[in-house]
Amino acid sequence: MRPPLWIAAWALLLQGCAAGRAPQVPSTRDDIRDCSADPPYLPPTATNTTARLAVLRGIMRTHGIHAYIVPSTDAHMSEYISERDARLGWLTGFTGSAGTAVVTQDKAALWTDSRYWTQAERELDCNWELQRTTSIESVGMWILKAVPAEGNVSLDPFLFSIDTWNSYRRALHGSGRTLLPLETNLVDQAWGDQRPSPSSSEIYSLPAEFTGSSWQEKVAGIRQRMEQHVRRPTAVLLSGLEETAWLFNLRGDDIPYNPVFYSYTLLTDTTISLFVEESRLSAAARESLLSGCPGPLCVELREYGQVSAHLRRYAQGNVTVWLGTEYTTYGLYSIFPQEKLLEENYSPVMMVKAVKNAHEQEMMQAAHVRDAVAVIQYLLWLEKTVLQGQVDEFSGAQHIDALRWAQKYSRGPSFQSISASGLNAALAHYSPSNGSSRTLSAREMYLFDTGGQYLDGTTDITRTVHWGEPTPFQKEAYTRVLMGNIDLSRLVFPSNTAGRTVESFARRALWDAGLNYGHGTGHGIGNFLSVHEWPVGFQSNNVPLAAGMFTSIEPGYYQDGEFGIRIEDVALVVEAQTEHQSGESPFLTFEVVSLVPYDRNLIDLSLLSPEQIRYLNSYYERIRARVGPELRRQQLEEAYAWLQENTEPFPVSSAGTAAASTLALTSLLSVLLSGLGV
Amino acid sequence: MRPPLWIAAWALLLQGCAAGRAPQVPSTRDDIRDCSADPPYLPPTATNTTARLAVLRGIMRTHGIHAYIVPSTDAHMSEYISERDARLGWLTGFTGSAGTAVVTQDKAALWTDSRYWTQAERELDCNWELQRTTSIESVGMWILKAVPAEGNVSLDPFLFSIDTWNSYRRALHGSGRTLLPLETNLVDQAWGDQRPSPSSSEIYSLPAEFTGSSWQEKVAGIRQRMEQHVRRPTAVLLSGLEETAWLFNLRGDDIPYNPVFYSYTLLTDTTISLFVEESRLSAAARESLLSGCPGPLCVELREYGQVSAHLRRYAQGNVTVWLGTEYTTYGLYSIFPQEKLLEENYSPVMMVKAVKNAHEQEMMQAAHVRDAVAVIQYLLWLEKTVLQGQVDEFSGAQHIDALRWAQKYSRGPSFQSISASGLNAALAHYSPSNGSSRTLSAREMYLFDTGGQYLDGTTDITRTVHWGEPTPFQKEAYTRVLMGNIDLSRLVFPSNTAGRTVESFARRALWDAGLNYGHGTGHGIGNFLSVHEWPVGFQSNNVPLAAGMFTSIEPGYYQDGEFGIRIEDVALVVEAQTEHQSGESPFLTFEVVSLVPYDRNLIDLSLLSPEQIRYLNSYYERIRARVGPELRRQQLEEAYAWLQENTEPFPVSSAGTAAASTLALTSLLSVLLSGLGV
Repeated sequence: MRPPLWIAAWALLLQGCAAGRAPQVPSTRDDIRDCSADPPYLPPTATNTTARLAVLRGIMRTHGIHAYIVPSTDAHMSEYISERDARLGWLTGFTGSAGTAVVTQDKAALWTDSRYWTQAERELDCNWELQRTTSIESVGMWILKAVPAEGNVSLDPFLFSIDTWNSYRRALHGSGRTLLPLETNLVDQAWGDQRPSPSSSEIYSLPAEFTGSSWQEKVAGIRQRMEQHVRRPTAVLLSGLEETAWLFNLRGDDIPYNPVFYSYTLLTDTTISLFVEESRLSAAARESLLSGCPGPLCVELREYGQVSAHLRRYAQGNVTVWLGTEYTTYGLYSIFPQEKLLEENYSPVMMVKAVKNAHEQEMMQAAHVRDAVAVIQYLLWLEKTVLQGQVDEFSGAQHIDALRWAQKYSRGPSFQSISASGLNAALAHYSPSNGSSRTLSAREMYLFDTGGQYLDGTTDITRTVHWGEPTPFQKEAYTRVLMGNIDLSRLVFPSNTAGRTVESFARRALWDAGLNYGHGTGHGIGNFLSVHEWPVGFQSNNVPLAAGMFTSIEPGYYQDGEFGIRIEDVALVVEAQTEHQSGESPFLTFEVVSLVPYDRNLIDLSLLSPEQIRYLNSYYERIRARVGPELRRQQLEEAYAWLQENTEPFPVSSAGTAAASTLALTSLLSVLLSGLGV
Repeated sequence: MRPPLWIAAWALLLQGCAAGRAPQVPSTRDDIRDCSADPPYLPPTATNTTARLAVLRGIMRTHGIHAYIVPSTDAHMSEYISERDARLGWLTGFTGSAGTAVVTQDKAALWTDSRYWTQAERELDCNWELQRTTSIESVGMWILKAVPAEGNVSLDPFLFSIDTWNSYRRALHGSGRTLLPLETNLVDQAWGDQRPSPSSSEIYSLPAEFTGSSWQEKVAGIRQRMEQHVRRPTAVLLSGLEETAWLFNLRGDDIPYNPVFYSYTLLTDTTISLFVEESRLSAAARESLLSGCPGPLCVELREYGQVSAHLRRYAQGNVTVWLGTEYTTYGLYSIFPQEKLLEENYSPVMMVKAVKNAHEQEMMQAAHVRDAVAVIQYLLWLEKTVLQGQVDEFSGAQHIDALRWAQKYSRGPSFQSISASGLNAALAHYSPSNGSSRTLSAREMYLFDTGGQYLDGTTDITRTVHWGEPTPFQKEAYTRVLMGNIDLSRLVFPSNTAGRTVESFARRALWDAGLNYGHGTGHGIGNFLSVHEWPVGFQSNNVPLAAGMFTSIEPGYYQDGEFGIRIEDVALVVEAQTEHQSGESPFLTFEVVSLVPYDRNLIDLSLLSPEQIRYLNSYYERIRARVGPELRRQQLEEAYAWLQENTEPFPVSSAGTAAASTLALTSLLSVLLSGLGV
């Protein structure tokens, strides 16, 4: 699995759910292709790929390649990619975010997960088989059938993680086929001058007020880790775009929603090489990077394209290179002989970046206060406009984006806003488009999952609301999702606990009723960096939780064809106050930093325990204390009133268990009262 | 990590805790060695290993070996081993269950975990360095220092798992030293005729009433799995002793507490080879195995020692051998070229055996009813005798063992009874001996962790009791352990949930107060087989939970130097009744089959939620319904009365949360009553 793909966790669920619904009989729909018709039917959304396939096949022949594998990621294992890296999309016409294509001289196939099956049938032409799975084993089996023994199977080693490369190697092992890494990308050759140019926008330094520490301090910290490591690495290699951006306090906009830029870094014990398009650096950025020259804190600027050549030279020496395998491509990895590598899942930069220092924590919290203002304004606006039937999913998304832009330090959304009404909210990857967008109404639940980039932090929040009469089941499901959010948020746990061992606390209230959700429970988040920041979170390849980490907590429930619920907050891992303490480290808990109340209309208080209600009330107190003053400062009096109303404390005696146990007393009381004639 | 070592989970905790307490200064104690004294001091418990080391080193020289690695396990990766396989113990004098020795021409070192550091200092002589860690990396670093470049490092490949072999290979990789597998065991050569003979006791067939299905049905089931597997394996290789015992419904007693016998099985699509000492088979066993001869259900009996030779011949063919890597040694594994192997963590026999069928479930439950009788008799006996000061840990253990032997179908204890009073209970591996045994008293808590082998099932239960006045902290800790046991036992979860993702429910009540325990939360258990039966349980290398599996649930709390608490029950995974159902499979939950009430003297009811009390009460109802009639049948009227008394329902209104929420009503009531002059 490609680890940065947070959303891939959805795929597991959806693949299962949707398997039975895949079209098995010739379709009479006109929105998807019908390759068995004579002549084949293609909808207007399909792309004619015949010419580009012919060009690619010609290039493959000149290289003696029988099958060519094309992935969806870029050379930095990025979750989001630029247009220039959308090779899979150009070649196949398929614009989904995840997939793999394989082309032979007479066949072409695309593998993608169930989120994208319908989309693929709309966008592919009949040159392509659609394979409804994503396992590399299945790609391998297809290749074994399609490629003669002794044939060459090729790929661009700079677009595959080490793990994925190894999986393909295993799949072809002993079969006679050769897996041939080709450094020149054949799709790029076929794409030719139609391929979008590299970004030329400015790469800028973050002002000191928006950084947790200077880049020189960060470099010194990483070098200290190198010295302290038992293997004594001589260098750290950074391939992830967030790694270099974080280390040097630089930002760019090469990739939508992610303020990063194409780059690599080789940080040795005595030198620093930054591989980047030098001309794009702002004057201030350049000055900052060169301020320590000559010396161990001088950044040597090198051409982005020279990274492989430089690493080859470096590999000649008596060196040990420390890298994180999750973000390094096989292309760079294979430059070094095994004994010169120190491999861990994540580079030391990823590990240090994951734990925010005091200033970074404060900035993140400040960004969340302003973000809450925008979300509260949106909720208030929806209350006033939805009933007029004038808001649809798309205009709603536009409105919340605009509200965020109006906040101080805003740099726009941190991902494409999810704005989904009714049954659309049950689709995990749903984003509305201008053309097809459902109107919001009091008859349906509405889910919005949105976030902002601010110079001081990144946000990500989901609220689900209903302006009319939810069904009892909707109310139960919402309340159970909320209980899960609360139970995980208030959990006290030992330091060094892995997220995957505690994420079930976000599920138990749902499990009790036989319900569940099929995606992960949360992901790390950056300071004006990626909204899905690894390695923090609750999945199996996340690292143990430590104080100073931020993670989302986002249980949900999805009723296929009807509605979807998700309640997502960002939380900071903090030390807990416990009566006792086993072990040497303080226990930990979460402090939720997203500051927007939940929809009271959807909460069934009788399901909540007194502890859950008390937790809710103290959270609401915190919202009032932090967001109230900011609303006043921004002179948003109506929003302030809305906030007060929506953060009224809940009566603890409404709790389900309390209700049961007070029954006896209540009866006794009523007997007494009636005896008194009251 | 050697997976079958359940107890190894303890080591992680204890290593951390005890690290600061390792003797750092010359000791004045006379129970441990002092090699820095002149002359060196050895306690009487130490073994003089000079002669045996000299013999081994001579043999090493004739083989050109510079370092020889000796592990603690046997050729079947067994958790318990026979005397004949106690090579580490013979060579070093150290009798702990886990460790690794390395011998060079002039050095010898033993690695073991913190449970055994004191014991090692008592048993080793000054030929041996004690290394206070168990990581293979540290063994490797020691070897790199002790062995010249170009040197040969050797081991017996039939005593190392594939994983461990690979770890040693990695540790020495690129260092110039060769890791040399030597099929002849050098310790055995040195041991010579002093080495205990192989067991000659009878291997017998289980009567049909004690098996879940005939061995022919089991073989057919495994062959069906072979046919259905996409890789179409031609054979399954079984190395784990439980695997062969289970498959053929055979039992033996080669290993203490474990009714198994030395054997291997190669089950092919057309033949069955059982490698075993043929003369030891009972007449009935022999007849059963040969009843299908000739034919695909004929068991060919082959010499135990011929397994490698036979596999080498089999490997010549066009074959694919399916094996579980957790129970296969590198020696057998390396016989097959990679492409002829189908490797999974556990063999299909382990996977099938893990899910008990209806008859096996019934047998297991019946065994637990009789086992509960013995444990209840023991608790009653303790109540009557402890206060007289006449019971110590050792005599207590003897008494419960005797009570179990008196039950129908008993075959003795399923492991060495843990019987620990006061501070001894904080030591995870404590078992009393006749010489040093603490007297039980009303001033201390007492923990006993015991189990029985019965022809129809295996049991494992821990209860902790106090006959006097527990401290408030002891009561709180006990109650929180109980709450954890309850919370995990009553959890409802989706099918296919991995145990490691839910075991925290057994910890949360402790975590809330800053407490924790350092061992695993539970392990699978067999039907008249191993008390620690993999792959079921809550650890990271356990398989997902499925209906029909049995696992222990055993949270604890250990206050170093003061007391220890553990509450362990065996539970069956069953389908849950839920209001709704996400997904295609019913949700699951546990049904506790251990049927002994908890110590009321240690429960602080005000900490429990009403749900927890209701759960306890329904569990106690089940105990009464199942064990009550058996006590009467056995005419144990006093025990019957004890059971009734100790399973009285708890008042739900005592629950902590209820108390809090009824406060307001109670106040109101008292005002009213006082107004009435009542």
